[in-house]
Amino acid sequence: MRSHFCTDLSEANVGDNVILCGWANSYRDHGGIVFIDLRDKSGLIQLVCDPADNAHAHKLASEVRDEFVLIAHGRVRNRGEGLVNPRLKTGAIEVVVEELIIENRSEPVPFGIGDNSVGEEIRLKYRYLDLRNPSMYNTFMLRSKAAIAARNVLDRLGFLEVETPILTKSTPEGARDYLVPSRVHEGEFYALPQSPQLFKQLLMVGGFDRYFQIAKCFRDEDLRADRQPEFTQIDVEMSFCNQEDVIRVAEELITGMFAAAGHEVHTPFNRIKYNDAMEWYGSDKPDLRYDLKMIDVIDIFARCDNEIFTSIAANPKMNRIKALRVPGADLVFSKREMKSFEDYVRKFGAKGLGYFQMKEDGLKGPLEKFFAPEDLQLLVERTGMEVGDVVFFGAGDKKTVWDYMGRFRIFIAEHEKMNLIDQDRFEFVWVVDFPMFEIEDGRVKALHHPFTMPRDLNHEHLEDIESIAYDIVLNGTELGGGSIRIHKQALQEQIFTLLGIGEEEAQEKFGFLLDALKFGAPPHGGFAIGFDRFMMLLSKKESIRDVIAFPKTQKASCIMTQAPSPVELTQLRELHIRLRESVK
Amino acid sequence: MRSHFCTDLSEANVGDNVILCGWANSYRDHGGIVFIDLRDKSGLIQLVCDPADNAHAHKLASEVRDEFVLIAHGRVRNRGEGLVNPRLKTGAIEVVVEELIIENRSEPVPFGIGDNSVGEEIRLKYRYLDLRNPSMYNTFMLRSKAAIAARNVLDRLGFLEVETPILTKSTPEGARDYLVPSRVHEGEFYALPQSPQLFKQLLMVGGFDRYFQIAKCFRDEDLRADRQPEFTQIDVEMSFCNQEDVIRVAEELITGMFAAAGHEVHTPFNRIKYNDAMEWYGSDKPDLRYDLKMIDVIDIFARCDNEIFTSIAANPKMNRIKALRVPGADLVFSKREMKSFEDYVRKFGAKGLGYFQMKEDGLKGPLEKFFAPEDLQLLVERTGMEVGDVVFFGAGDKKTVWDYMGRFRIFIAEHEKMNLIDQDRFEFVWVVDFPMFEIEDGRVKALHHPFTMPRDLNHEHLEDIESIAYDIVLNGTELGGGSIRIHKQALQEQIFTLLGIGEEEAQEKFGFLLDALKFGAPPHGGFAIGFDRFMMLLSKKESIRDVIAFPKTQKASCIMTQAPSPVELTQLRELHIRLRESVK
Repeated sequence: MRSHFCTDLSEANVGDNVILCGWANSYRDHGGIVFIDLRDKSGLIQLVCDPADNAHAHKLASEVRDEFVLIAHGRVRNRGEGLVNPRLKTGAIEVVVEELIIENRSEPVPFGIGDNSVGEEIRLKYRYLDLRNPSMYNTFMLRSKAAIAARNVLDRLGFLEVETPILTKSTPEGARDYLVPSRVHEGEFYALPQSPQLFKQLLMVGGFDRYFQIAKCFRDEDLRADRQPEFTQIDVEMSFCNQEDVIRVAEELITGMFAAAGHEVHTPFNRIKYNDAMEWYGSDKPDLRYDLKMIDVIDIFARCDNEIFTSIAANPKMNRIKALRVPGADLVFSKREMKSFEDYVRKFGAKGLGYFQMKEDGLKGPLEKFFAPEDLQLLVERTGMEVGDVVFFGAGDKKTVWDYMGRFRIFIAEHEKMNLIDQDRFEFVWVVDFPMFEIEDGRVKALHHPFTMPRDLNHEHLEDIESIAYDIVLNGTELGGGSIRIHKQALQEQIFTLLGIGEEEAQEKFGFLLDALKFGAPPHGGFAIGFDRFMMLLSKKESIRDVIAFPKTQKASCIMTQAPSPVELTQLRELHIRLRESVK
Repeated sequence: MRSHFCTDLSEANVGDNVILCGWANSYRDHGGIVFIDLRDKSGLIQLVCDPADNAHAHKLASEVRDEFVLIAHGRVRNRGEGLVNPRLKTGAIEVVVEELIIENRSEPVPFGIGDNSVGEEIRLKYRYLDLRNPSMYNTFMLRSKAAIAARNVLDRLGFLEVETPILTKSTPEGARDYLVPSRVHEGEFYALPQSPQLFKQLLMVGGFDRYFQIAKCFRDEDLRADRQPEFTQIDVEMSFCNQEDVIRVAEELITGMFAAAGHEVHTPFNRIKYNDAMEWYGSDKPDLRYDLKMIDVIDIFARCDNEIFTSIAANPKMNRIKALRVPGADLVFSKREMKSFEDYVRKFGAKGLGYFQMKEDGLKGPLEKFFAPEDLQLLVERTGMEVGDVVFFGAGDKKTVWDYMGRFRIFIAEHEKMNLIDQDRFEFVWVVDFPMFEIEDGRVKALHHPFTMPRDLNHEHLEDIESIAYDIVLNGTELGGGSIRIHKQALQEQIFTLLGIGEEEAQEKFGFLLDALKFGAPPHGGFAIGFDRFMMLLSKKESIRDVIAFPKTQKASCIMTQAPSPVELTQLRELHIRLRESVK
């Protein structure tokens, strides 16, 4: 019906006859002439309805209210000097309306299009009005383009997109499954998949060689700003490959998706060992847009004259004393502020937060008195302190120190007085060489999942065994990860044994995969990327709800949900309570 | 790990050093030399392990059994005269193995790869073995390529792929929804969508202008050979469009998908009015790969001397007497066979099946005596009978005649003595101008769905009102269809009233959409194509299970299903029975 979208037009079109379709974003009567800002997905353009040009169109135009649906035939002209609106892409031109059709009317809208000052609940209740904001459209255009780019890259690399079932059995991710009773098949229940993990491994056993899918996954968990009960995952698996092959594919995929959004990304991405990430940044998803690297100083503190520190330093295998040098901090933070940082880290288990300030005459601070001058000098050298810097110390058992010093590192970077984060930068890093196992409350658990290939089982301590697993991190957010999988049945059984999973349990939970491993499984591995989170980062949105067309919120757990019917609901409520009890 | 796939190699590679990865499809020891047919997704190639070339590789090769996973380094050579295997694509060459790695072993497999003579259940139980058949891989490659082609066509035409929720509320398709209780949100239930219909209309109200999605849809129904409880749909919707715009997009989409499979398809497709389709082919999804068109002869039968026919002919509005001329039938079918066709049509409500044979001396047959010579002549002229042809007659109320004569038409075309169907042809046809309503047992129902735009409401009989709806039919199978939707609230309410849907019911079922229509909904329309069925036709497969990687069967309602746990299952079984009762 239309000849152009609104912002397709520019001064190059002056004199052209055009047909535009869209919504009345606003209207005003100015000296008997009606001006309408017409909006479509591309943006706005001004329509002019002058009774001198066309009395009929003008009469109709005077009936137009916000969000009326219009079809306008007219001619493009220059607005003329002094009348240009620099805030509009089409601000230099306007369309003189020759024929106007009011295609549909609108009741007064509950909020103005693009008005983000109203609450999120009301925006979601009238999501279709919220979506009319061209900036919303742009986000979803980006999402569509990124998905198509992903598919074209993977297609080019010989991957097939294969759809795996949504109605399936429980998968081993560990969160709660949604269970779906079938009304037709009595006694049958499906589970919605938390990922296509088992299916993609079966496809490798089936000789498919290179698989991918942009797949819906499900977890029956509480909603959070960054979590929806259904989410989308770019899922990839390949055979006869090693870690390098998989990483190369992932980098090509990510590069292609960023290119579709107009961002050039350089490969290969940086890599960091899991252990180094923890030691340097206190996190397995470090944000590398800023420097701030933690430095080991346990050997220096071992010689100090404070029993708290020396007792910690006495066990350097289990404990850590870490220094975080913050350049220029002494110039911007008051002593009170520096003291207040302690309150922040205490929330994460810190007993305190020591610090030194680098003054013209050397290190100063509450801890100064415990150190010999040469050790103070050593601290300066090791941390690279310069005048105006502050170095903060965390001491304690290593996991606690990693955690709170890692958080403190981010806290400082984001602090409005430091503002260390370049929001335009995309810093990718692969975190590699993860431990295979973690021990929690004496129980051995798989850090990734039990199908992950260990690098070498010959270690005295289980915790020292590494797996061939890798995570991809962007700006401090884990985008995804993967691993090389176990393809030999004997090894898989050995891992289950180490994890304390008995033969019967293994058969019940993963029997289908275990059977498959008997019949010639090829070496294989892959990765998955959380597409919603990826889109948040790519489009620089704060909430996952900004990148999902119809998100769920705590209040309206699904935007379309109304209970099926009052009677049915009562029945279902009972069922629900029993279901809940049954899984306790 | 590999340098080539097996069938990448040809005589052009003779002398090349290659690395191949795959499965031992077969092996044999021939005069001390081991020959292995190595298989990967592309197909087969022969490996030769001669102790004279490499003793170690030969020793390993002699351990190889069916489905062992191998990595072979070697050199390509010509097989030599007389040794060429014409059944293999690589039958002129072989690879002399220099290094062999047995990457994984296999237990004896329950059936040979590609052996389709074993039952479907066992093939599905070991789906990963079934999938190793390169012809299976080719089907899924085609599916992946077709999906990518669809996306690229729609992207080029300005459509965005938008993901709509899987966990949602009931949609109006009328089949049973799967209901999903949430364990976290007490008393909350989701329904799995039967289609994204409401969401895509909301996206149009939201100004998205052009939407598509390759979407999973769900119906809690019995399984059949051509039906799965979850299926995939290519779903398209656009704004400011008419039927021609939508049809053009659909044709471009289908053409693109066929091109990806190497088939050239010509547009525009044929069109036929719903009413003509019924009158001519007795079906709203006519197979036009063959001719066989039913011809009205009620006026001729009105003059015959048989009260059965004349009483039927007395009500030409409700009844039909149809002739189906079958060229050459008299030359291949015995009188007994022609009589037996009556048994076939009786199953579909026919009272009988009259026929005339065209002999050298004119029409002959049981009915001859009832007709005046000039009417017999008229029958010959109207049906175009030639010597050797048979014309069959169906008489009765129009719906019954359409149905059984339509089925008989297909029966004849498929009959092994006629064999009228060219299996290599793709005959597309749009069926247009559907009735808006159908009346069943005195109840008015929407033929498509209640959001379909009527063409003109001013008709005395509801059944005469047409809708702007269209179906796309390929080779007698409905691939999909769509309509222009109602975008004005008042009209939507009027239609609900005609359908006997009260205000309260409408608000409860479709409130979200009705609300949206108040706030400036644009004119819009779209279509959906069943992708699984599309792939069956495109890849010429008999069963929907051949185009789905992990299909469900009656016996194993999901290939991965095991009940969550025995205890939980008992609990769930009870829930299931109550759920069943609650919806009775």
